[in-house]
Amino acid sequence: MDVSELEIRVRYAETDQMGVAHHASYLVWFEAGRTEFIRQRGRSYAQIEADGWLLVVVEARCRYLRPARYDDLLVIRTRLGPAGPATLAFDYELVRKGDGQVLARGTTVHAAVDRTGRARRIPDEVRRQLGLPSLPASGSARPRAGEPRHPAN
Amino acid sequence: MDVSELEIRVRYAETDQMGVAHHASYLVWFEAGRTEFIRQRGRSYAQIEADGWLLVVVEARCRYLRPARYDDLLVIRTRLGPAGPATLAFDYELVRKGDGQVLARGTTVHAAVDRTGRARRIPDEVRRQLGLPSLPASGSARPRAGEPRHPAN
Amino acid sequence: MDVSELEIRVRYAETDQMGVAHHASYLVWFEAGRTEFIRQRGRSYAQIEADGWLLVVVEARCRYLRPARYDDLLVIRTRLGPAGPATLAFDYELVRKGDGQVLARGTTVHAAVDRTGRARRIPDEVRRQLGLPSLPASGSARPRAGEPRHPAN
Amino acid sequence: MDVSELEIRVRYAETDQMGVAHHASYLVWFEAGRTEFIRQRGRSYAQIEADGWLLVVVEARCRYLRPARYDDLLVIRTRLGPAGPATLAFDYELVRKGDGQVLARGTTVHAAVDRTGRARRIPDEVRRQLGLPSLPASGSARPRAGEPRHPAN
Repeated sequence: MDVSELEIRVRYAETDQMGVAHHASYLVWFEAGRTEFIRQRGRSYAQIEADGWLLVVVEARCRYLRPARYDDLLVIRTRLGPAGPATLAFDYELVRKGDGQVLARGTTVHAAVDRTGRARRIPDEVRRQLGLPSLPASGSARPRAGEPRHPAN
Repeated sequence: MDVSELEIRVRYAETDQMGVAHHASYLVWFEAGRTEFIRQRGRSYAQIEADGWLLVVVEARCRYLRPARYDDLLVIRTRLGPAGPATLAFDYELVRKGDGQVLARGTTVHAAVDRTGRARRIPDEVRRQLGLPSLPASGSARPRAGEPRHPAN
Repeated sequence: MDVSELEIRVRYAETDQMGVAHHASYLVWFEAGRTEFIRQRGRSYAQIEADGWLLVVVEARCRYLRPARYDDLLVIRTRLGPAGPATLAFDYELVRKGDGQVLARGTTVHAAVDRTGRARRIPDEVRRQLGLPSLPASGSARPRAGEPRHPAN
Repeated sequence: MDVSELEIRVRYAETDQMGVAHHASYLVWFEAGRTEFIRQRGRSYAQIEADGWLLVVVEARCRYLRPARYDDLLVIRTRLGPAGPATLAFDYELVRKGDGQVLARGTTVHAAVDRTGRARRIPDEVRRQLGLPSLPASGSARPRAGEPRHPAN
């Protein structure tokens, strides 16, 4: 199963005076979908962090197609996107359960940061858990120049 | 002056357990920067809404370069991005005031929606206010097929 | 059944750099609990608003007993609190599902506001739906002096 | 000077579909006011945390008198409330700058938690900074039974 599904209900606090869910809420929902995707693959993201790894967000994109409204029941469909040695991506589709309409599509790109706050290659145990191919051993574990040191979550 | 600047201070509530500002907060800050950009050009966004126009967000993107932290004083630099008949864009740069480092860059794309909730060409008074060139009168005020009907804010 | 229960999972975005859920999140969760309580009694709060009534928050209180953490599964127990002619209250208990510990207790007090933005007696259909006793017909539908005109949600 | 003032502008993201600022936003604003109050007394709350002390929120209350609206310029007036050996309180008044109207009044009560996550007496350096009277040396640094161990922020 390469897509996880998570249901959420739009909260009043998530609406704005336009009468629809505020566009920043979608990133919060995507994050909840990502949490669920990872949990379904065996180890929660909370455990990954407890193991000393952070998957920080280095890029986020969303296209808003139709508005989500208060009390709407939504389904967040999360799947893996392209992965490199130092980054991995998740793709999201937000669907309203009532009518099946796609409300938004988005992507987040993540880098792995270790306990010392330095960007690293995605750790093997995370790659295995998520079903990404292993990387050949490398002379350098350091990210390329220009890679983030400790990007925002 | 084609760039507006707005100072904000990172709030405790905007941090997460990674110890940095949560990535969804950046969209909220961009929105505050956009509000300031529009106000400096003569009519507040609150007035534009009161006139019956909503500039809904149809796309948002952000690249996170370095983390913003609690109590950091930030400067949001907002400028206009590319505009079409039915959409306009804003580009943002987030800078930490203390050391001048660029923390993030982002873009939001907006469509105009009228009182009836239908997507329209960007109204001329908004184009004029923001310094966009006027459009030739058109036989069709309707957005092209595939344009959003009433996208999320 | 005079208590409704709603499960929610603590989101990463709801944590702060203290490593626990931010205290303002609890009001958002209480609101979700209240939405569920009302829905279970036959008409959603979305419908009540569509009928022209807003139940605005005029007071909120919370006692935080133990921290909620990222990914915790919580149960919000909502019940009615004391009601007067122009106000009604909800009481909340927040429990962690894993160990049954009570994490917080809170109360919100609400006033009814009509379409014109004026505070009114709680409408009879809302009283009936929630199981509150009907009020005797009154010479004055107006709230007492000092009642809010159009308080914050 | 026993009252600090902080100006903030209501953000679009802070409104809800009622067209006013959501009631949970007030706790976030109070927190910003508290941060400013502490900074003006010589050491920022960020530094207090770096020294190993957390002032966790054990109680919050707010009375909403009039709604704050998008783009309103607000002043948060923060002052100290009652303090005991293990707790201290802040009182807040939220005023709209345009017309001087008081929109809300609130209180938060805080306990001190040390690096190990245990509740402690408010540390002397924090008492001094905030102008609270020193406590007599005590045989027991432990909070009374029933005090929170590690309450929510």
